[in-house]
Amino acid sequence: MVYVTRREVFSAAHRLHNPELTDQENEDIFDKCNNYHGHGHNYILEVVVAGEINPKTGYLIDLKKLKKILHEHVISKVDHKHLNFDVPFMEGVNPTAENIAVGIWNQLVDNIDEGRLFSVKLFETENNYIEYRGE
Amino acid sequence: MVYVTRREVFSAAHRLHNPELTDQENEDIFDKCNNYHGHGHNYILEVVVAGEINPKTGYLIDLKKLKKILHEHVISKVDHKHLNFDVPFMEGVNPTAENIAVGIWNQLVDNIDEGRLFSVKLFETENNYIEYRGE
Amino acid sequence: MVYVTRREVFSAAHRLHNPELTDQENEDIFDKCNNYHGHGHNYILEVVVAGEINPKTGYLIDLKKLKKILHEHVISKVDHKHLNFDVPFMEGVNPTAENIAVGIWNQLVDNIDEGRLFSVKLFETENNYIEYRGE
Amino acid sequence: MVYVTRREVFSAAHRLHNPELTDQENEDIFDKCNNYHGHGHNYILEVVVAGEINPKTGYLIDLKKLKKILHEHVISKVDHKHLNFDVPFMEGVNPTAENIAVGIWNQLVDNIDEGRLFSVKLFETENNYIEYRGE
Amino acid sequence: MVYVTRREVFSAAHRLHNPELTDQENEDIFDKCNNYHGHGHNYILEVVVAGEINPKTGYLIDLKKLKKILHEHVISKVDHKHLNFDVPFMEGVNPTAENIAVGIWNQLVDNIDEGRLFSVKLFETENNYIEYRGE
Amino acid sequence: MVYVTRREVFSAAHRLHNPELTDQENEDIFDKCNNYHGHGHNYILEVVVAGEINPKTGYLIDLKKLKKILHEHVISKVDHKHLNFDVPFMEGVNPTAENIAVGIWNQLVDNIDEGRLFSVKLFETENNYIEYRGE
Repeated sequence: MVYVTRREVFSAAHRLHNPELTDQENEDIFDKCNNYHGHGHNYILEVVVAGEINPKTGYLIDLKKLKKILHEHVISKVDHKHLNFDVPFMEGVNPTAENIAVGIWNQLVDNIDEGRLFSVKLFETENNYIEYRGE
Repeated sequence: MVYVTRREVFSAAHRLHNPELTDQENEDIFDKCNNYHGHGHNYILEVVVAGEINPKTGYLIDLKKLKKILHEHVISKVDHKHLNFDVPFMEGVNPTAENIAVGIWNQLVDNIDEGRLFSVKLFETENNYIEYRGE
Repeated sequence: MVYVTRREVFSAAHRLHNPELTDQENEDIFDKCNNYHGHGHNYILEVVVAGEINPKTGYLIDLKKLKKILHEHVISKVDHKHLNFDVPFMEGVNPTAENIAVGIWNQLVDNIDEGRLFSVKLFETENNYIEYRGE
Repeated sequence: MVYVTRREVFSAAHRLHNPELTDQENEDIFDKCNNYHGHGHNYILEVVVAGEINPKTGYLIDLKKLKKILHEHVISKVDHKHLNFDVPFMEGVNPTAENIAVGIWNQLVDNIDEGRLFSVKLFETENNYIEYRGE
Repeated sequence: MVYVTRREVFSAAHRLHNPELTDQENEDIFDKCNNYHGHGHNYILEVVVAGEINPKTGYLIDLKKLKKILHEHVISKVDHKHLNFDVPFMEGVNPTAENIAVGIWNQLVDNIDEGRLFSVKLFETENNYIEYRGE
Repeated sequence: MVYVTRREVFSAAHRLHNPELTDQENEDIFDKCNNYHGHGHNYILEVVVAGEINPKTGYLIDLKKLKKILHEHVISKVDHKHLNFDVPFMEGVNPTAENIAVGIWNQLVDNIDEGRLFSVKLFETENNYIEYRGE
């Protein structure tokens, strides 16, 4: 068994806000991340697929194919978007890095057909990142 | 003469849009950067100060002091903001990386009192960056 | 369950030396790391917390809060210090990266109250790093 | 138990090609990686050793010694080589990153005598990497 | 005036060899870089264009356009190639990083029509890089 | 003319202190960098040599040779040392990054015999660096 990682970058805006809380509670909890018009990041996404090496190709999964899957199901939907307004799979979800990572997992888990999705890592800044393994 | 560089990071949203152009022209020129609600970046800022070493301290300028100047005049004004709505020094300016770099230069040039401002570098992504030297 | 990572950097001096060994043995084992006055590193620390997402905030743990915990219990005690002389939690311990990582784990394990401490990674150089998971 | 990682870099050429397939099949599967004269990479290798800290040294394994093991059994055999022609342990193997990682594991697994080999990570580009844990 | 940088990566094989020297001289000078079948690198290319900001767009040159120019005139010709066999603009030239940088400059200098080509930087490894400014 | 850069890393301890000032003045100016036993860094050194390409080799200067010069005149003298006690060329000098960069320039300027020394860059942390060009 091997683990194959593909790294992609996307640029998006977001605002942390829970509509079930008051404005004051939102500001207390989310502080500057609650800025009305939002702010943004170059998110770095690392997707790990686990499985056996195919003896014919020497690949677990062709990385050109994995890249295509990531672009179709994730990057084309989030890159150069505002995560609170423009992304169907984040609708009604507060776009914390934790929730984005889970959303991306759900976009991918049924679309990997060689090996299985093992981990989604999402770097929001160079100092903060999240990993979700579907547990 | 030495050159001293301080690196800072800020997270901001922006939308590229020139109100003097039609919507179609804006879309043709700025493409996905013209997305209505904006998108965002972790901008990396590198500010270079040039000058003589002070024999008393061995510094050109104390980097703790340079950091404070950058935070007061730049970072506090752009970090976790939307550059089209929240930043006075970018008002009425299309927030391309080129224009942000010039805006940051103007914020700093009169506020460095040891050595002189030599260069402002602004990385919008890991593949694209701008340098402005006041020329 | 998600894994949240916070990255911090601290600059410290250290000397590898076991007082129960002779000077010759120390030199044979630790070589240039045994230099009498010490040497130093920009240590990169990555702390991973594991747990459930809080549905109210969308966070496992607020990263501003995790940063504060790391600064109070670790960074303020080791940054700009000599690990052999200035750090109570390293007293009597040979400050190898392995032992520093264990020391940092012990500083943190009872001070994370949302989720649980999962891993401490410590990069001594860009080529050498240690991970400790409390096992 | 701690995990110790040593990072090394080597520069090598390779061509992806399975001699049991036709030229057309090779081109269809491996595309530009099938280029007749090959292409190349700065491969980044991260080797992880797991085990107990030795109380005499404070080390799991002396990283100078681990570096020597990596150079003797891996780096000296692959650095500045063409992986399809010059590397005995890759003979008859299609040099995908997956297969190289397994080959490196086999070179190392019996040559680590303090702790045990836990993981071999191989970065082929900044966006693609493989991990193999002997599973 | 601003300086705009675009970064691209390409993976290529090469062999350092001067056919006007004897085999022994080639081995003495180029050492392991003279390996018969070649070796390879992930070359990082940074191209700098200098010029005025266009008031209509806020750009010196649209980075999407600069990326297209780099792909047409450089990346498509060198990526996944062997520089000694497959690249017309390197024919008859010993592919040292110095000579590749000059070759890339010549490919680009007449194809930048907004601003002017200012600098070509080529990183062969993380420790070695070349800059050429057409001087 | 081309510019060739070689990057090296060294690990050293230092303490910022000017013996001509009082203890209070030293603490006021150098703050935590004045810590009695010192602290430390992984300094990153980038040395740039400028000159013509030698048509016989395709090199400005063989990077293996430049590496040897850097190790003989700089790295062997500062790596795993305390800059206030162990380094002859820093004797009597307050080891700020500015002063170390000038010291390294002086070690190298007469020892480069192909091309000429153009620049010494010294990164003290990932956020702070100095460049000296002998001006």
